[in-house]
Amino acid sequence: MTDPAGPPPAALPAGSKDVLPVEAGELREVEGAIRARFATFGYREVMTPVLEYADVLDRAQEGRLRDAFRLFDESGRVLVLRPDLTIPIARLVATRMADHPGPVRVSYLARAFRPPAPGRPAPAEQRQAGVELLGDGGPGADAEVLALLVGALRAAGLPDARVGVGDVSLTAAVLAGSGVPEGSRAALGAALAARNLVDWRRLARAAAPGAALLAELPSLRGGPEVVERIAREVPSAAAAAERLGATLELLARHGVADAVVLDLGVLREWHYYSGIVFEAYAPGVGAPIAQGGRYDDLGGRFGRPRPAVGFGITLDLLHQALLAAGNGGAVVRDGVVLVGGLDDDPAAGEAVRAAGIPVVALPATAGDPEGLAAADGWRWVARRAPEGYTVLDRVAGTSRTLARLEEVLTPS
Amino acid sequence: MTDPAGPPPAALPAGSKDVLPVEAGELREVEGAIRARFATFGYREVMTPVLEYADVLDRAQEGRLRDAFRLFDESGRVLVLRPDLTIPIARLVATRMADHPGPVRVSYLARAFRPPAPGRPAPAEQRQAGVELLGDGGPGADAEVLALLVGALRAAGLPDARVGVGDVSLTAAVLAGSGVPEGSRAALGAALAARNLVDWRRLARAAAPGAALLAELPSLRGGPEVVERIAREVPSAAAAAERLGATLELLARHGVADAVVLDLGVLREWHYYSGIVFEAYAPGVGAPIAQGGRYDDLGGRFGRPRPAVGFGITLDLLHQALLAAGNGGAVVRDGVVLVGGLDDDPAAGEAVRAAGIPVVALPATAGDPEGLAAADGWRWVARRAPEGYTVLDRVAGTSRTLARLEEVLTPS
Repeated sequence: MTDPAGPPPAALPAGSKDVLPVEAGELREVEGAIRARFATFGYREVMTPVLEYADVLDRAQEGRLRDAFRLFDESGRVLVLRPDLTIPIARLVATRMADHPGPVRVSYLARAFRPPAPGRPAPAEQRQAGVELLGDGGPGADAEVLALLVGALRAAGLPDARVGVGDVSLTAAVLAGSGVPEGSRAALGAALAARNLVDWRRLARAAAPGAALLAELPSLRGGPEVVERIAREVPSAAAAAERLGATLELLARHGVADAVVLDLGVLREWHYYSGIVFEAYAPGVGAPIAQGGRYDDLGGRFGRPRPAVGFGITLDLLHQALLAAGNGGAVVRDGVVLVGGLDDDPAAGEAVRAAGIPVVALPATAGDPEGLAAADGWRWVARRAPEGYTVLDRVAGTSRTLARLEEVLTPS
Repeated sequence: MTDPAGPPPAALPAGSKDVLPVEAGELREVEGAIRARFATFGYREVMTPVLEYADVLDRAQEGRLRDAFRLFDESGRVLVLRPDLTIPIARLVATRMADHPGPVRVSYLARAFRPPAPGRPAPAEQRQAGVELLGDGGPGADAEVLALLVGALRAAGLPDARVGVGDVSLTAAVLAGSGVPEGSRAALGAALAARNLVDWRRLARAAAPGAALLAELPSLRGGPEVVERIAREVPSAAAAAERLGATLELLARHGVADAVVLDLGVLREWHYYSGIVFEAYAPGVGAPIAQGGRYDDLGGRFGRPRPAVGFGITLDLLHQALLAAGNGGAVVRDGVVLVGGLDDDPAAGEAVRAAGIPVVALPATAGDPEGLAAADGWRWVARRAPEGYTVLDRVAGTSRTLARLEEVLTPS
């Protein structure tokens, strides 16, 4: 169809894409299910602007705000396209909801932006759905947010997602309690961030030769028995271990214990986390489809300290997981292609539309209404007939004659 | 609450704003009503990226792509934050749906970005909901899109919006048929764009002294009698006038004639329109809450010519109109604040949540649950009692004791 002498291809920037109707419809369904689940826990949506001042967001990042799209406003101040949602939401709650009695429960459904880079093939624009619970620092809040993540993924149609839960304060307590000198902790942290367990073990054995548990720490996976072992072997880490144990116990009572596994190798890329950190995985998707954690120190950077915990689901990855699980894809949907509806008979479809069923109007001269119905997945094709309408049912492969178009909604 | 020695205020860029929960909830309700209406006419949502190459969008604008946020990608190519949706959607349909048999009906719900400037106080980010109908060039398509605009505004809760409809091809035909020399038309167009009717009349009388109708053209308002008069007084414009008359006749059959008024002074800021152009107004809002028109030449700029017509509603302005009409504002909503739900009793709310009613969990030690309920507008406050739950109804001002929390949903 493209004129070879016409304009050059209309390319998109690296990491950007168009979303066509079938995928867009599936994404909106997933969003709707997740938002309904968020709402039943009392999370209320807020919206922040795409553009923020770089120095404001950087306040929460301590100079780590790299990997963001940058531009200048008319006075030369640097703007960024928000690279995540947690910091802008923390800014909003600290500044605009400072007087809220708390706890504050907010949700978002928004895009985050990061330039594509070598080694980071992620899309430049990621649609994310998440929650933040601010003003409660206890394990009950940790457990609610984890249970809500599992419940939201299940509501979206993914019953078998798994959430790995680590705890940066527990890891720090084990390091300190195992006698690792202050000077060795940065190298251990770097090994963990790089997920290099060989380096971790070598460094751990060199720094604290007698600490058997320390060398294994990033490999520890399981349930309550893991935190009990840590409390036993590193007594100074017992308080942090018991707190994580309390969260696990509450998760069992939320009915989601089978979806959650302790994994002390989980580490977040952002550096503001202060307690639990977690990632959700699903079969068929190589990257975490959701990430989150506790970040008790972020509100203070915006003038209103409040403990906080939350997560964000990357909707494109969740959608990939649903496709891998066999959910989604084009189907035939209820909808009437009406020949003549555009010019001869514009009001004929109104009763069908009022019932929530699409009526797709064509001119009376339309040559191939079945072709349009097939292209867009509509079930019925209707034509004016002397006694009313002749309606083809593409699913049943039958035709019938109806006095009024809305009779299409009643089974023959 | 802000520490006076703390960080400086976390400012937002000019033209940007945060949206708090009550307003965000109202915006989502409006969006939902509009999207449902779009869907019943068979419009299917598509999504385009926020960032596009400047030279690709500029192809449709003929060098007129000013007033956009600009930045550079890693190879130095200029990117823009899309300043409108019509051009990206035209690009998507021309390139990704080139083989669709047509007509193509697509909708969008997305943000457009334009830097604030002196004389343009509009927000930097505008949330817009719109449709495009591509592949049908007749008055039936014009009428469907206008009827859908009126229907969407009514579905959103605005029964008394008015749509002013002009036609750039009719205006051009009247200019040509009135004997205005080619060299005088640019000045007349500039007067119209500036809505300077005094200049228009002066220029029109100088260019075509005998053409009484021409001088009045931008002031002509009304219904079918206006197009009949034009056809009579400027015979060479009769075809364009009759086509507009056919659109009006179809609008009457769509049941929206009372919401539509001919207004040949309507002119669009963008220069790609080729037929009808229209704007919707509502009491209490100074700017058009929706704009649209026919743009038959845009698809060809992306290699796939197709006639097209569409509109975009600016959701913030629609929301303003709803507030001016007395719709919206904070209310008490069904929802249970549950003391102890966060730590003692995490599963107690599940049956209520399954019914779609929010349960907002607090720790057992929560000091002022009524304060939270008042701040966020929740109807009930529940506390564990020996025989079940004591529940305060903030609307009725009464308390009762329930064996199970879900009995809150049954009237007392």
